Amino acid sequence: MKLIDNPSKQQWANLCSRPVAERQDLGGSVGKILNQVKSGGDAALMELTAKFDSVAIDSLLVPDSEREAAAGLVPENLKEAINLAIENVKKFHASQNIAEEAVFTSEGVKCWRRSVPIEKVGLYIPGGTAPLFSTVIMLAVPAIIAGCQEIVMTSPPDKSGKINPVTLYTADLLGITKIFKVGGAQAVAAMAYGTESIPGVYKIFGPGNQYVTMAKEMVQLEGIAIDMPAGPSEVLVIADETSKPVFVVADLLSQAEHGVDSQVILVGSSRDVVEQCLAEVNNQVKDLPRRETAEAALQNSTAIVFDNSDDCLEFSNMYAPEHLIIATDNALSYVDKITNAGSVFLGHLSCESAGDYASGTNHTLPTNGNARVYSGVSLDSYVKKITFQELSDAGIRKIGPAIEVMAEAEGLEAHKNAVSVRLNALNNV
Amino acid sequence: MKLIDNPSKQQWANLCSRPVAERQDLGGSVGKILNQVKSGGDAALMELTAKFDSVAIDSLLVPDSEREAAAGLVPENLKEAINLAIENVKKFHASQNIAEEAVFTSEGVKCWRRSVPIEKVGLYIPGGTAPLFSTVIMLAVPAIIAGCQEIVMTSPPDKSGKINPVTLYTADLLGITKIFKVGGAQAVAAMAYGTESIPGVYKIFGPGNQYVTMAKEMVQLEGIAIDMPAGPSEVLVIADETSKPVFVVADLLSQAEHGVDSQVILVGSSRDVVEQCLAEVNNQVKDLPRRETAEAALQNSTAIVFDNSDDCLEFSNMYAPEHLIIATDNALSYVDKITNAGSVFLGHLSCESAGDYASGTNHTLPTNGNARVYSGVSLDSYVKKITFQELSDAGIRKIGPAIEVMAEAEGLEAHKNAVSVRLNALNNV
Repeated sequence: MKLIDNPSKQQWANLCSRPVAERQDLGGSVGKILNQVKSGGDAALMELTAKFDSVAIDSLLVPDSEREAAAGLVPENLKEAINLAIENVKKFHASQNIAEEAVFTSEGVKCWRRSVPIEKVGLYIPGGTAPLFSTVIMLAVPAIIAGCQEIVMTSPPDKSGKINPVTLYTADLLGITKIFKVGGAQAVAAMAYGTESIPGVYKIFGPGNQYVTMAKEMVQLEGIAIDMPAGPSEVLVIADETSKPVFVVADLLSQAEHGVDSQVILVGSSRDVVEQCLAEVNNQVKDLPRRETAEAALQNSTAIVFDNSDDCLEFSNMYAPEHLIIATDNALSYVDKITNAGSVFLGHLSCESAGDYASGTNHTLPTNGNARVYSGVSLDSYVKKITFQELSDAGIRKIGPAIEVMAEAEGLEAHKNAVSVRLNALNNV
Repeated sequence: MKLIDNPSKQQWANLCSRPVAERQDLGGSVGKILNQVKSGGDAALMELTAKFDSVAIDSLLVPDSEREAAAGLVPENLKEAINLAIENVKKFHASQNIAEEAVFTSEGVKCWRRSVPIEKVGLYIPGGTAPLFSTVIMLAVPAIIAGCQEIVMTSPPDKSGKINPVTLYTADLLGITKIFKVGGAQAVAAMAYGTESIPGVYKIFGPGNQYVTMAKEMVQLEGIAIDMPAGPSEVLVIADETSKPVFVVADLLSQAEHGVDSQVILVGSSRDVVEQCLAEVNNQVKDLPRRETAEAALQNSTAIVFDNSDDCLEFSNMYAPEHLIIATDNALSYVDKITNAGSVFLGHLSCESAGDYASGTNHTLPTNGNARVYSGVSLDSYVKKITFQELSDAGIRKIGPAIEVMAEAEGLEAHKNAVSVRLNALNNV
């Protein structure tokens, strides 16, 4: 972790750059997989699973027996923890369901919006080394609250042809039954196009490796919506003289252990505290099971000392971190000045892992500077908002003439005529 | 306009298909334009404008003098109409600004969201045959209400090197001063990458031809957000025995005059009324200035008779129209059953052109079946929602143990440790 002292503003843009993973040109190979699934359906999926996951499966759908057996394999204390997390994620996402009032924009012109669930959604849950059952909670709970009719889940099988029991248990608890053993670009293809077993969906959610990401980008061009562009995870911590180095460093490392391409940034207005943090990093990292990953990520990572906390925040806003931790006594005073961030953790006790699992906020968040423009996953991600308008006699009389004038000025006579025939009819009554 | 009687459900999917414009492979030529602008900046833009718009311009920025002169070229009644439209669009979009309450998901765990404007947005306003000043209203008003700091507008110059005065007047009225004379893929590139004159933005809005659409799709892959995928405009009208053929047909034709690739669909539960409408089409179309366009669009268009209005609505939900007109006495009874549509017009007097110009709803809407998953442009399109969480002592004590258990089960020891160091510190006080 490099220490940088008071960089000039010219240097900021460079300090905000993310580690550029060598982005291989996967378009060709992913395109091939997409086409193979489109034309070959289930058989193609099984073939691709044999090839990429090294396992022969005879059924894509997770059978009831496997789903039901999963509960027996999950320890009680983990079940309780998952329950608590689900409850909190439910509470927060349910609070996002706010009905809007209709407004009369002119006399007799009533307009309103209605949130309507996206009927079919697909959730991709990565497999691999760590079973990410928390992602099941984060993606499925808002889908259920929104009222999505068809929730399809895919996850790659392990070498024995099974899906991690905690993942299955969590999905089962939430009532999700359409779970399919398929991962990678082929899973995205299956949910985009549909196969004999796997229903096609309108929007695909979830993190994944570079094949999954590329497949999501490619099907997006064919009209399938996706949650957001994906990139490596990151955190930025703002510290001052009130910060507690042991806590700050634990947070930095919790991000660093995610992957070698993770990035952690510490910005501080106290050189002392920043130096204490750097020393503490060496202290804490050595005991981590994922020490090597964390140390590699720290190579991409920077500690920056600024003269004052205004600069710290300004830099953070420019960086637009996925996770922002304000590790100071006066964290609340920052809130209104934060312009770009995915999710914000305020004060000494709001660690990022709280949001990763159980505070209730969603952990599917915009990375790579996308927090400048994208929101994290929320209830909004599972609905579309349909607008309605209803004009009375008075309404069309009030705004009709303006519409006629504007339509004519745009050279759209038939648009004008749609009003004229109505005004004529009203005037002839 | 073909008449189809009671199609079987097997035929529905086919009837829902849109006219497939031959999508040329523009990736190569658009990619070249993007790169040219990225490396050549303003000079490249002027060169491309000379090439594609056949006009040599010496300044991309619309000068104050041209902007100020525009007002003198707009007739008073059009100014009044534009004012009314702006007021209504303001009222409706302002009503979408709803603050959410914070919630305690567990004791001591406070979570909330805050809407924060996207700092920099770009609005593309097409030029060409018809000056679409209404699009200025629809794209700029919500940007202003949201509080976007930098609003950049681009529109192609005409052969004399000017932008339509009504477009300029409307923008000026809204306080937009960063208006640039550039169109096509090069305008999208300028807003995506920035040039010497044109500020780069984070999100690009607006309709355009196939070059503009392709450019938006391509810069999206580079991390620039776009409003939504674009496609030809369309309307679906639901009629029954209470419908008024003269009104229904005026609405169908107002859509048909948009372009030869527009699609208009009439579904009705009364064969009589549908037949009257078909006769009325021939009656109304012959007087339209854009008759040829409308007649070409009608070639893609269908009138479908169903046995009952439930089937009409079910078909409409499957079609997922950009504009849905319920041209019946009991239009309100449909509202809760509409699952897929962009904007809905209820009753005999709510013509589509009301929403195109002045009812207050946005006219930038999802086409081509995208209404299944996308919303139209709204205030939401100009903000991101940042989540916040603040844990007290009680909060971390309450949910900390669950986080520890879950993090450990996911094999993320540093995530667990971020909680443990805090619980230890609290227990040692």
